[in-house]
Amino acid sequence: MRSIAILGSTGSIGKQTLEVVEEQGDLNVVALSCKGNIDILEKQVRKYRPKIVCVYDERKAREFEVAVKDLDIKVTSGIEGLIEVATVKEADVVVTAVVGMLGIRPTIAAIESKKDIALANKETLVTAGHIIMPLARENGVKILPVDSEHSAIFQSLNGENYNRISKILLTASGGPFRGKKISDLKNVRVEDALNHPNWSMGRKITIDSSTLVNKGLEVMEAKWLFGVEAKQIQVLVHPQSVIHSAVEYEDGAVIAQLGTPDMRLPIQYALYYPLRRSLSGKRLDLFELGDLSFEKPDLDTFKGLSLAYEAIEKGGNMPTIFNAANEKAVAMFLDNKINYLEIIDIIQACMGEMEFIETPSLDNILETENNTYDFIGERW
Amino acid sequence: MRSIAILGSTGSIGKQTLEVVEEQGDLNVVALSCKGNIDILEKQVRKYRPKIVCVYDERKAREFEVAVKDLDIKVTSGIEGLIEVATVKEADVVVTAVVGMLGIRPTIAAIESKKDIALANKETLVTAGHIIMPLARENGVKILPVDSEHSAIFQSLNGENYNRISKILLTASGGPFRGKKISDLKNVRVEDALNHPNWSMGRKITIDSSTLVNKGLEVMEAKWLFGVEAKQIQVLVHPQSVIHSAVEYEDGAVIAQLGTPDMRLPIQYALYYPLRRSLSGKRLDLFELGDLSFEKPDLDTFKGLSLAYEAIEKGGNMPTIFNAANEKAVAMFLDNKINYLEIIDIIQACMGEMEFIETPSLDNILETENNTYDFIGERW
Repeated sequence: MRSIAILGSTGSIGKQTLEVVEEQGDLNVVALSCKGNIDILEKQVRKYRPKIVCVYDERKAREFEVAVKDLDIKVTSGIEGLIEVATVKEADVVVTAVVGMLGIRPTIAAIESKKDIALANKETLVTAGHIIMPLARENGVKILPVDSEHSAIFQSLNGENYNRISKILLTASGGPFRGKKISDLKNVRVEDALNHPNWSMGRKITIDSSTLVNKGLEVMEAKWLFGVEAKQIQVLVHPQSVIHSAVEYEDGAVIAQLGTPDMRLPIQYALYYPLRRSLSGKRLDLFELGDLSFEKPDLDTFKGLSLAYEAIEKGGNMPTIFNAANEKAVAMFLDNKINYLEIIDIIQACMGEMEFIETPSLDNILETENNTYDFIGERW
Repeated sequence: MRSIAILGSTGSIGKQTLEVVEEQGDLNVVALSCKGNIDILEKQVRKYRPKIVCVYDERKAREFEVAVKDLDIKVTSGIEGLIEVATVKEADVVVTAVVGMLGIRPTIAAIESKKDIALANKETLVTAGHIIMPLARENGVKILPVDSEHSAIFQSLNGENYNRISKILLTASGGPFRGKKISDLKNVRVEDALNHPNWSMGRKITIDSSTLVNKGLEVMEAKWLFGVEAKQIQVLVHPQSVIHSAVEYEDGAVIAQLGTPDMRLPIQYALYYPLRRSLSGKRLDLFELGDLSFEKPDLDTFKGLSLAYEAIEKGGNMPTIFNAANEKAVAMFLDNKINYLEIIDIIQACMGEMEFIETPSLDNILETENNTYDFIGERW
């Protein structure tokens, strides 16, 4: 029986991971964590009976301890707690579904404890790919992508170990503002940006989808996961989100993974890789779908994507600046503190003005995040 | 260095196989065969210097012998010659690109001589799949599909050895008469039917594409190659021929192979499997292509396909009757002896009236072919 720990079990990916656990019936949940949503966590804990949890928020953790005092469970908090959850002895796989750079230290700790990583935390590879990937190789640990696109690429690489990738085709729905121009985006409200056409996801990632910053972060992630250059990764706007991504090999053959938009598939694939399991839910029906179309991304309107390529090109801590600036800016937009187009202005300003470090250590990266937040705090 | 023998080297697939040999530069051509096109064969022989050839036509073989008397080469003829080519000691792989049931005995001989088979001869599996597949397993020999669709399925199965196929999506361009109704097809001339929208192929297979009989034969072949039931094979009309076919797994994931219409890719893939090699030529450009569309096949108009499913359902020698009747009928159509719609009438009449054998031996199958030809000869 495989045992799993979930970092971020009350978020969108965490909850869907538990749906997979529920459906399959042969995964053992040994550890969970959340930021502060202890009502949902309590339900999860009573159902799956992990031996340890982390409630990141210290005060909520104490509250939670009282709520579950009838259970034999260890309640931890803060980053130490997250690391304890990530390294719990019994776990074979750690699902890293926390949002933000918070995920990096626990992921490193999990890798050092020889756990396979079902990676749903983008920031880990975006900012620290140069540290994480060699570390995973050294420890003989698999990094299994949970993102829909990266899972599609990973599935398209199956059995092709010795074959050279000539190109990765990373598909993008184009988000709710596909076809719009800059002038159309001036008055975008939070609720407009949260209205994603194909996928039901968390708030932050939905905004990132609308700006194509999410796609930029995915390009960064793909570069590390699959060992290719950014220029080998081509973003394809494919509004129907049927082709989840594809790989072109040196003979010109393109292998693609297609499916309905259901995050449980990549989650399940990562948890049982290389085995597939039956999964309930709607099947792809190409007859019903109508035509599949493809467009080049509009880089003039969606500058977030071109800034992402610039950040990769520059390397060092630049992807961290890009990511941290976006994270802060999106939070400010969601709080109605800035307008929609300012998200990109903020990223661009940070990339232009923050200190560049060519080969950043983990500490440098974490400092870069804080410095970026401070820089934005002073200016906006 | 891999050594190959080609059965049918002067046909469309044979010639493209030699283009792959030319481009790659590290395949050794040890044996060739043709029906009677000795002008082309002579050029091939002078270039690739095989040690043995078969010219199936006895008289042409004698003529060829004279033409190449300056070379150190053995010239054979007839079915014994084909078998000698198929079992030549030096060959690692035999490309079976002859048309018709003529391919069966040499293929069996090659398998018994432990050669891997790059299979371009449809009839082998269509009529004798129940003999060929167990024989290949016994001899530890690979059957590597060369057909574009079957190669796509084979590529989509890469690395999925332990995973259950829920469905095969076999794509079809729909041919030149897609969208037509029976009444539109009454006056189809040979040149109309030879005008295939996407692929450049031999005459017989181009006619079969226009009737969807070819797709029916492919369903039969796929059933044997991939060990699935006919009802698990869904034909998708996909006019752009970009998705070459796909596999749906039990988790709902669909893996597909896409590409430009270039038969050299499946040929090369079969010759180097599981390795891919660089291949010259145009790359797939999804931006340039416009939309990809999918339709259900019109089984009322293209009865060839529904008759094929009936033949598989019935089993035994019924696929042989289907195939032989079609082969004869297409030859008659190409000779302007029958009209286009009679191709299907002939298949239907043969399937209804020929003797059914539930578990046919190889001899039964070959007799069934002859009996079918005789039956048609008497009636039409």
